[in-house]
Amino acid sequence: MIKDNEAGIRMYDLASRIFPYNRSITGEGVRQTLDTVADYIAPSGVKLNIASVPSGTQAFDWTVPKEWAIREAYIEDEKGNRIIDMKDNNLHVLGYSVPVDKWVDLEELKEHVYVEENQPDLIPYVTSYYKERFGFCMTKNMLDSLKPGRYHMYIDSELFDGVLNYAEAVIPGDTDEEIMFSTYVCHPSMADNECSGPALAAELINTLASLEHRKYTYRFLFAPETIGSITYLSRDNHVPYLQKHMLAGFVLSCVGDDLDYSMIHTRYSDTIADRVMLNVLSRRPKHTIYGFNKRGSDERQYNSPGVDLPVVCFCRSKFGEFPEYHTSADDMSFVSPEGFQGAYDVIMEVVEILERNAYYRMKVLCEPQLGKRGLYTEISRKGIYDQILIQRDVISYCDGRNDLLDLSDRIGVPVSEIIEIIDRLIDNDLLEEVDNVKKA
Amino acid sequence: MIKDNEAGIRMYDLASRIFPYNRSITGEGVRQTLDTVADYIAPSGVKLNIASVPSGTQAFDWTVPKEWAIREAYIEDEKGNRIIDMKDNNLHVLGYSVPVDKWVDLEELKEHVYVEENQPDLIPYVTSYYKERFGFCMTKNMLDSLKPGRYHMYIDSELFDGVLNYAEAVIPGDTDEEIMFSTYVCHPSMADNECSGPALAAELINTLASLEHRKYTYRFLFAPETIGSITYLSRDNHVPYLQKHMLAGFVLSCVGDDLDYSMIHTRYSDTIADRVMLNVLSRRPKHTIYGFNKRGSDERQYNSPGVDLPVVCFCRSKFGEFPEYHTSADDMSFVSPEGFQGAYDVIMEVVEILERNAYYRMKVLCEPQLGKRGLYTEISRKGIYDQILIQRDVISYCDGRNDLLDLSDRIGVPVSEIIEIIDRLIDNDLLEEVDNVKKA
Amino acid sequence: MIKDNEAGIRMYDLASRIFPYNRSITGEGVRQTLDTVADYIAPSGVKLNIASVPSGTQAFDWTVPKEWAIREAYIEDEKGNRIIDMKDNNLHVLGYSVPVDKWVDLEELKEHVYVEENQPDLIPYVTSYYKERFGFCMTKNMLDSLKPGRYHMYIDSELFDGVLNYAEAVIPGDTDEEIMFSTYVCHPSMADNECSGPALAAELINTLASLEHRKYTYRFLFAPETIGSITYLSRDNHVPYLQKHMLAGFVLSCVGDDLDYSMIHTRYSDTIADRVMLNVLSRRPKHTIYGFNKRGSDERQYNSPGVDLPVVCFCRSKFGEFPEYHTSADDMSFVSPEGFQGAYDVIMEVVEILERNAYYRMKVLCEPQLGKRGLYTEISRKGIYDQILIQRDVISYCDGRNDLLDLSDRIGVPVSEIIEIIDRLIDNDLLEEVDNVKKA
Repeated sequence: MIKDNEAGIRMYDLASRIFPYNRSITGEGVRQTLDTVADYIAPSGVKLNIASVPSGTQAFDWTVPKEWAIREAYIEDEKGNRIIDMKDNNLHVLGYSVPVDKWVDLEELKEHVYVEENQPDLIPYVTSYYKERFGFCMTKNMLDSLKPGRYHMYIDSELFDGVLNYAEAVIPGDTDEEIMFSTYVCHPSMADNECSGPALAAELINTLASLEHRKYTYRFLFAPETIGSITYLSRDNHVPYLQKHMLAGFVLSCVGDDLDYSMIHTRYSDTIADRVMLNVLSRRPKHTIYGFNKRGSDERQYNSPGVDLPVVCFCRSKFGEFPEYHTSADDMSFVSPEGFQGAYDVIMEVVEILERNAYYRMKVLCEPQLGKRGLYTEISRKGIYDQILIQRDVISYCDGRNDLLDLSDRIGVPVSEIIEIIDRLIDNDLLEEVDNVKKA
Repeated sequence: MIKDNEAGIRMYDLASRIFPYNRSITGEGVRQTLDTVADYIAPSGVKLNIASVPSGTQAFDWTVPKEWAIREAYIEDEKGNRIIDMKDNNLHVLGYSVPVDKWVDLEELKEHVYVEENQPDLIPYVTSYYKERFGFCMTKNMLDSLKPGRYHMYIDSELFDGVLNYAEAVIPGDTDEEIMFSTYVCHPSMADNECSGPALAAELINTLASLEHRKYTYRFLFAPETIGSITYLSRDNHVPYLQKHMLAGFVLSCVGDDLDYSMIHTRYSDTIADRVMLNVLSRRPKHTIYGFNKRGSDERQYNSPGVDLPVVCFCRSKFGEFPEYHTSADDMSFVSPEGFQGAYDVIMEVVEILERNAYYRMKVLCEPQLGKRGLYTEISRKGIYDQILIQRDVISYCDGRNDLLDLSDRIGVPVSEIIEIIDRLIDNDLLEEVDNVKKA
Repeated sequence: MIKDNEAGIRMYDLASRIFPYNRSITGEGVRQTLDTVADYIAPSGVKLNIASVPSGTQAFDWTVPKEWAIREAYIEDEKGNRIIDMKDNNLHVLGYSVPVDKWVDLEELKEHVYVEENQPDLIPYVTSYYKERFGFCMTKNMLDSLKPGRYHMYIDSELFDGVLNYAEAVIPGDTDEEIMFSTYVCHPSMADNECSGPALAAELINTLASLEHRKYTYRFLFAPETIGSITYLSRDNHVPYLQKHMLAGFVLSCVGDDLDYSMIHTRYSDTIADRVMLNVLSRRPKHTIYGFNKRGSDERQYNSPGVDLPVVCFCRSKFGEFPEYHTSADDMSFVSPEGFQGAYDVIMEVVEILERNAYYRMKVLCEPQLGKRGLYTEISRKGIYDQILIQRDVISYCDGRNDLLDLSDRIGVPVSEIIEIIDRLIDNDLLEEVDNVKKA
């Protein structure tokens, strides 16, 4: 496991670069983001395939919406002072606003301004994807300071038949059984939610592509939340393909802060994605495990009836659970290289466990004679006695009924320690990988 | 669900009418009770079939006992004062007393008098079905006040080859799968235990017969406790028939007070009768759930090995758990229209759930687009956001693996709310009823 | 169940006789012990078959070690005073010491002396089976009191190609399905660990052989710990034979003190050996249940992957959990006739339960009429009402799905009470033994 912050620094930097783009579920901001990711992973040789789905395309129960172009948005007072300007902060314009160019008095202005009552110094993030309207967001303090008078509401935007974009990258492994990561590219200038997910996914692509050996194929999806993942799933036979080939999947969201580690379980909390993430997070001093009822991102679609994919959601601080969520306070100071690095380490630990996970069985009956093989003295870390007991427990439960996660959970030590012991036992010709006897 | 007490008032009135009859496991009191019930349900068009089984008939391990006729019972002192008289309270005579006509001194009298030591001002209810004896019951205070002297013990009764009566009513539904209610008619003048069970059963017959549509057939049994249900089960191939056709059954006992809601589980607590009653009672602020070890009424027979019927017992306050139980304090003041109404509401909620219970599955993949169907705005009660989350959870778990009770238990809302949402989803062509995929 | 201490006194006496022998994993001490056991059980007619396995024999992953002969061991000071002498306590010599005859100064002496730092007045028990060395054990107080000077280290021992001994006794029953007891004979002069196990096993042989009737065959193994049980399992096709025929097995260790009752579960805590021992111990006011992670004796081998035998370990105070463990304080004052008797009673209760354990089913439908059979009045012990309820619960759960242990656990009374009721019901032709319907 990488212990310094090198990857964290790179991810923080990438997130900083995509932070300014004015993303929404469609439009130029999405494409700028995907292009930046494509550049970032280019050295790895992995190609980012960007799809463009025309407005009006049917996607299961949904229809791909019109594309949104946003060029300018501000409010001026009578003297021409710009009260707010999208140039200062993308959050100032209601997402998917239709155009407006109108002088109004303060009362009418207020009908089109959104504030967060309980956080008077923050700009809230608000959208109106499926109902045509226009609007502005500002701090409550600013709204309260506005004097009666005339104000110029100006939005230069357009809703037109364009495209919805998403992008996919696949890194082949020894088998076409695959592990999927899904993140979203539809939130404007907020750092944790959601410049962090794409940054982590991009870094993972570079790391995974550089591995000498991969048992599994790795699939990465960058898509607008909800409509993007639904559109993706509705096309190219993706649902049956993924049902057949996906071992485990992970939605990545809010992975740049360093306040918590958290996960959201699948519909029945019973997949290997649940087991591996729970195992890894349980070893972090601070972590929070959420039930499926707390879902909120694209795990909703992957876990929907008939789709039934084994996808959990992984976050540092879970969306909706921190005060900066969906406000201007979720800026680049809310995330950190350390935060990114911690998330990266979790996922790489998950990957390492899944790559190695298997069922094992002892090749000798009764306990082996460890002394003659030096399997007492090879042990050095921690208390020797503890290590001997752990090794003894691994030997006892390597009966073909327990995989690495079972062994780790039963014995109460990290999978990495289990793997060390298993490798020693295999090297000594004492252990072999077998099919799960429970399946037999 | 009926929210006023109209049904409660009718049941209270019916219970008052049958209260005075001197019921036992056989005899005229049973027939008076059954006739009164027959009259009560006559307007519904449902026929009460009264069976008469001759004394001496074998019923599994039991034999139908002799019929008991009781005409008069009193104790007089030397001056001809009646110390107690069955005319004042049926409880004064030991159930199934043989005749006596004898002057005795106080000491001998005491050998034949039963009191309740811990409740000195109450008359206990005592019987001696299977050992021939005679006896009287009175308050301990009265017994203590008796002066030495001569007393006349007089009971004009008869044990003879007669019949044991029970009665059955069946309301046909669309299928011959059935829901059974069983109550007993063998306790003399006590209100909750057991004028309430027959009164509730009679009212349910009227209500269920009036329904436009019934999926299930409803069977009602009015029988003397233990020997009556055993006799019933032993005849007419009832055990195999009910094993094949019974979906769920409910013993009704002590359903007229308003102190508690309670149930007794089946032998393994695992039938749909357990699940539905537990679901409904768990939503009452006050309720008590008893294990099968606390059984005491005819659920004993229905749950016996080889009979194996899915029958729970439903009570307001459970028999044996309230101080008035089996004493003269269990009179018409201990029950109330409100108490009856509460019991009636529980059973009707149980019926509504069972009638609607099914497995459902979404017809679209991924979450449906609720906005375009107005499925956000149709929601009005309570917090809109809560309702949206509940609807979202219903959608997620309608995957063919959860019936209405599973959905209610998982999501933590009453089945009635689940049904509302399911109906909306069906109306919008988003949901369909399916076979349980767990069975497949 | 025997309630006095007669058996306890006999076992205490037998343990006293084998206490002085200087046992190790091989050698004369083992043979003396086995011969004493053979004498003890001779009157029962059961033969103790003593096996001799040559040094160098392969036993699964192990090799039978050289035999150890130990004739004399002491340390003298310059004046010829014996500081310690094996004649005083066998623990003074490190187990499996090679010979030495050398004058050294205090510093060099200390390199070969083992003490227990935290118990300065006790001699520790130490061995070095698989690495050739020599050494002495003494109290820390004694070591601290030694003055600088010259000391004579003398051990007259020998490691030579000899044999490893174990012994087996089999008492046939009606079937070749069997119950096994395993104990070990390799610890020198310590009472609880382990003169007690062989003494209990010997007494059990005498008792079981004297029974008029045995459903099961009983097998007893007396072997050196670890290498002995491994050697035993590796020979004569024992593993497949025991896998096919063993119903339950019990390692007996530390069964002579009277401080606790304890058991160690099998690998998955799910065998009938676990169930019966847990049931019996749970009824002792003081008892401790250990998971498989606390294993330490030959249950390790019986439960190893591929061996997979249903063997729990039974102790009074578990080895390693009492301060006297593996020191000179584990002498004959640490055990007692009462301690032995308590252990014996547990095992005999286990045997009685296993001999009788079966699935039962009522032969009549509904509750039987107990009154006509006097099954109320036959009940006399404790509260009659409690007994009636227990009998009623036995009747209800005798549906072919519960064995005696299930009934005891469900109803919360000892198996002995269940058996009494079942015998009464069988006598009254109300109950019959059946195959477990769960298997059907």
